[in-house]
Amino acid sequence: MPNHVLVEVTRGALVESVHRGAMAIVDVEGAVRFALGDVGAPVYTRSSLKPIQALPLIETGAADAFGVSQEEVALACASHSGEPMHTTRVAAWLKRIGCGEGDLACGPHMPRHEPTSEAMIAAGQKPSRLHNNCSGKHTGFLTVAKHLKAPIAGYVDVDHPVQQAVLTSLRRLSGIADPTWGVDGCAAPNFAIPLAAFARALAQLAGLRTPGAQRILSAMMAHPELVSGTGRSCTALMRAANGKAAVKIGAEGVYAAILPQAGLGVAVKIDDGASRGAETAIAIVLEKLGIIDSSTDLSRAPVLNTRGALVGEKRPAKALVEARI
Amino acid sequence: MPNHVLVEVTRGALVESVHRGAMAIVDVEGAVRFALGDVGAPVYTRSSLKPIQALPLIETGAADAFGVSQEEVALACASHSGEPMHTTRVAAWLKRIGCGEGDLACGPHMPRHEPTSEAMIAAGQKPSRLHNNCSGKHTGFLTVAKHLKAPIAGYVDVDHPVQQAVLTSLRRLSGIADPTWGVDGCAAPNFAIPLAAFARALAQLAGLRTPGAQRILSAMMAHPELVSGTGRSCTALMRAANGKAAVKIGAEGVYAAILPQAGLGVAVKIDDGASRGAETAIAIVLEKLGIIDSSTDLSRAPVLNTRGALVGEKRPAKALVEARI
Repeated sequence: MPNHVLVEVTRGALVESVHRGAMAIVDVEGAVRFALGDVGAPVYTRSSLKPIQALPLIETGAADAFGVSQEEVALACASHSGEPMHTTRVAAWLKRIGCGEGDLACGPHMPRHEPTSEAMIAAGQKPSRLHNNCSGKHTGFLTVAKHLKAPIAGYVDVDHPVQQAVLTSLRRLSGIADPTWGVDGCAAPNFAIPLAAFARALAQLAGLRTPGAQRILSAMMAHPELVSGTGRSCTALMRAANGKAAVKIGAEGVYAAILPQAGLGVAVKIDDGASRGAETAIAIVLEKLGIIDSSTDLSRAPVLNTRGALVGEKRPAKALVEARI
Repeated sequence: MPNHVLVEVTRGALVESVHRGAMAIVDVEGAVRFALGDVGAPVYTRSSLKPIQALPLIETGAADAFGVSQEEVALACASHSGEPMHTTRVAAWLKRIGCGEGDLACGPHMPRHEPTSEAMIAAGQKPSRLHNNCSGKHTGFLTVAKHLKAPIAGYVDVDHPVQQAVLTSLRRLSGIADPTWGVDGCAAPNFAIPLAAFARALAQLAGLRTPGAQRILSAMMAHPELVSGTGRSCTALMRAANGKAAVKIGAEGVYAAILPQAGLGVAVKIDDGASRGAETAIAIVLEKLGIIDSSTDLSRAPVLNTRGALVGEKRPAKALVEARI
């Protein structure tokens, strides 16, 4: 039984493309409050895992030992746009822990933020590993490695103490003993668990049922632009939620929301991996849960042509519009 | 009944994302040789329509009247990458028909070809309408308008003689009397017809059953890099097919193939609009039809991380692997 269509993209009078997917909402007691589609098959959590990947930074005591700021905790949870506000902070943090760009295991890529990448091209600058959207997460990993006096080299090996600490946190929060893993875009291990289990883990963070949760949620909600970047979905949703949600997108159509006041975790996976689908799906759910105001219209987006004319719309499909969440 | 999964993207041991879609293969007599999924619902043909949108350029006599070269016919069928080889030819063609960039109804966007766009950024240049991937198609439209002594202004209105000539061609080839239309990314009307009817229209071109077909197919197959651009799917497929296929991708997961020797038309639509799905689906079909050699491996692509390591694979899914085409 294929998953429902969650999001549709129109052009003129027709629906041109559709995004199927699954979604789970779980409460702090671990009860599934809402599920749509297959929430039992393992899905890679991708960058939506970052708030959990950042837990050892707090819970091992590494953050306190190295004077890690809340801005830096936000960067540890970030898929950032490579803007100067991101890269300068990551560089300073790396230096403070006695590391440098060369210690990062992630590869370089151009900043997602166009004005930044255009300025770099104009200046003849190549991207560094600092520009990798995961450089904050990796600096968090390095901070933990330093604190644990574990080797810096190989900190992204799944058997390294840092990754084992992440895995221990994920096991505890999700209840999944043995997650599948693959290699993420940034070379770190990424774990795959059922969507319902992922929502359960996020709900455990929402309920502050692990020591590091408060600090991670506060950091993300206080610094949405550091978790994401100028003009992006996570930034807009966290600003609109105004302290009621920490959200994190992941590659291949994943989206996570941690709702501390509601005591819920929400996990979305779009089958085809489209971010545009995940962004619309999470936004309508946050609207329905009263986390963001529907007047912000974050769950709908115009489709414009190259002349700027309105030619269609991206919107929630029937299964989400009619869902009793 | 949802369409089958045609393409899958793996990471480690799991399938991470999937692309569903439909496909039709029709012969020159109009018989459906193969169909998978819903080939009866109207789908926007997007830029895969360009070989048909270029027919009036030949069939009205406009191309002969204005000395349009085969390179220019290829550009009329193009979603080009905005490389100098594209924009200089379009600019010269526009000038020859007494028009300029300001007459183009398409909006500006940065070239898809990264070295070109980076050079422009470095030089502080803004993109012009010439860089729009459809500027060749629009110049073809303008050439027809000039030849018909129709107004230049409003040449993208659906009631304009140029668009009515396109519609007449599409009706004749597809057998669909009244296609739905919407506005394409380039501001021109785009028509939606069932996938089987679109494949039928493409087969009519393959069978040279309309006067302009020979010239359009020859132009596309002789100049794949002008129809597309450096390093792109259409370029690679047409080179590999070596005269046995003219192919054209469209936005939102559409792909068309015109096979003159086999006498077939092939139309693909990926439900979610992903180009990566359409590229793989058309490639495996061309392999199965013996149009391209499977050793070229165009139907599979590695998924690499930012360090360049192999972390997964994009490949045809079971429904296509096992399809008896």
